[in-house]
Amino acid sequence: MPELRKDPVLGRWIIISKERQKRPTDFFVEEPKVLGGFCPLCAGNESSTPPEVLAFRSDPQAVANDPSWQVRVVPNKYPALIIEGELGKEGEGLYDRMNGIGAHEVIVENPSHEDLLWELPIDHISLVFRAYRDRLTDLEQDPRFRYVMIFKNYGKAAGASLEHSHSQLIALPVLPRMIVSELEGAKSYYRYKDRCIFCDIIRQEIQQDVRVVCQNDLFITIAPFAPRTPFEMWVLPKDHSSGFCTIDDQSLKSLSQLFSETMRRLNRCIPNVPYNFVLHTQPLRSGGIDHFHWHFEIVPKLTSIAGFEWGTGFYINPLPPEEAAQYLKKSLDN
Amino acid sequence: MPELRKDPVLGRWIIISKERQKRPTDFFVEEPKVLGGFCPLCAGNESSTPPEVLAFRSDPQAVANDPSWQVRVVPNKYPALIIEGELGKEGEGLYDRMNGIGAHEVIVENPSHEDLLWELPIDHISLVFRAYRDRLTDLEQDPRFRYVMIFKNYGKAAGASLEHSHSQLIALPVLPRMIVSELEGAKSYYRYKDRCIFCDIIRQEIQQDVRVVCQNDLFITIAPFAPRTPFEMWVLPKDHSSGFCTIDDQSLKSLSQLFSETMRRLNRCIPNVPYNFVLHTQPLRSGGIDHFHWHFEIVPKLTSIAGFEWGTGFYINPLPPEEAAQYLKKSLDN
Repeated sequence: MPELRKDPVLGRWIIISKERQKRPTDFFVEEPKVLGGFCPLCAGNESSTPPEVLAFRSDPQAVANDPSWQVRVVPNKYPALIIEGELGKEGEGLYDRMNGIGAHEVIVENPSHEDLLWELPIDHISLVFRAYRDRLTDLEQDPRFRYVMIFKNYGKAAGASLEHSHSQLIALPVLPRMIVSELEGAKSYYRYKDRCIFCDIIRQEIQQDVRVVCQNDLFITIAPFAPRTPFEMWVLPKDHSSGFCTIDDQSLKSLSQLFSETMRRLNRCIPNVPYNFVLHTQPLRSGGIDHFHWHFEIVPKLTSIAGFEWGTGFYINPLPPEEAAQYLKKSLDN
Repeated sequence: MPELRKDPVLGRWIIISKERQKRPTDFFVEEPKVLGGFCPLCAGNESSTPPEVLAFRSDPQAVANDPSWQVRVVPNKYPALIIEGELGKEGEGLYDRMNGIGAHEVIVENPSHEDLLWELPIDHISLVFRAYRDRLTDLEQDPRFRYVMIFKNYGKAAGASLEHSHSQLIALPVLPRMIVSELEGAKSYYRYKDRCIFCDIIRQEIQQDVRVVCQNDLFITIAPFAPRTPFEMWVLPKDHSSGFCTIDDQSLKSLSQLFSETMRRLNRCIPNVPYNFVLHTQPLRSGGIDHFHWHFEIVPKLTSIAGFEWGTGFYINPLPPEEAAQYLKKSLDN
């Protein structure tokens, strides 16, 4: 059984997951897994994964786990957390722990092995984001869970262990430290100003127009004022909304269009750059929160720069976001 | 002029340092610098670095910047922050920025190119830690600075760009987010219990004796309860002390002995593992703080595991610290 443990000073939760027990020297593995040409996520290989928890198929005659899917969500075969059991919260002196209860799922973004998410047709990208929304809505029903983290690692340097285009979802019985800090910061601004800080950021960015990368009717992509890495970008809905699970189909399409354009711009600037994106949304069952605003954070992984941060928690970024925005804006000009 | 910028939501400061201006594609550099056999940090090459700000030499006839040094501290030739100037704090709408004023120094740990810090004689390691202390004490006099971060990146995977054994020091006009969180967490515990949380951790670890790696008269090394990576370790003084700058010479020696043993144990478990260590000490000019306790955090960089964290801020660790402590304890048995 995996275990959740809380750092008593920082309040940061970590997962101890022994599922793949190793000897000490086995931890030092530089290379990602190579599966000898066989990909468990490709269409036709459905029996290599646990049965799907959600899939979109256009054929009304199709049945679960057949190969006709467009987007497919399956439990992770090697989950960091497990779905069955009680939370079993307990103390050990000044420490706190609980059972590693949670969901760990893989969103397989398309049937074929080679296609990248941002290169897919807008309608297909919409299906991927719809899968995020529908899984969020479903997992919200489980009273044991407090947060669903949805993220994507692309490229070996960003931590991807499988080539086939996919994102991941982890449902947690605790709030990740990153979200706690964000909620606290946003709340303290709201208390002072009575306005959502993200709404204010969007207003200021549109007015200044030096860090806006692109926008459409409903969404905007900016290079944030204090980016961790060159070309970090945030994609936000222009109108206030705290939870991704309330997004409607029209907005999904608009988001997909802007996400595709954003990634096309990024890849023009740095071809095939490894990146992570993380959906920042409100905790489960929050209703609507006035001070929080859901968004995606896209963080390119540039190895030569990341080492410093790993050690110190302090980021040094050689590229001002105003210049990054300029590069990105001009990237599709010819 | 580099610039410090604050993320308005998280309060996290980052450095925008354009000193080495690049085109977009230049950011994607996987390989560390190779200097064609010439090392600017080796004894004899003193003219390749800026003049030293501190050095220890045993020869009383020696002069500054001659090659007879044992430990030498020089300004970084490519500093992330610069020492001359005013802070120039200013707002820009809801954003905050200031000039990138600070010190960025390199602590060259020994004259020869090959030796590793933990393999040096205890008296030599003591000189390195004494250099940390003396630089901290000196930089504390500058009223512009609020924190001095001292850290070491060993190995390419951990962000080291030079092979020659060295650590780094960055004096900052702001508090790093990591330290703010730690101070807040420790203070909230102190308010409730009237005891230092780190002192309580040490007491509980000694009593339980399942995560203690090694100890001597004055210091203790533990595998922390909620470690981010396999073999993460903390080295703490057993008696309460909030600032590293107050450490006396006898304690420096005791610390050096335990650090050397700790690293010897780690390297027996995972030979030549890349790692970061960071000194967590109190902010400058704090006097003595009842709720904070200085310590070193040693975090091995195991590439296959770090990717996940980078994206999500959430750590999954396959090795419980109780098992890590067992491996480390037995590592010197034969």
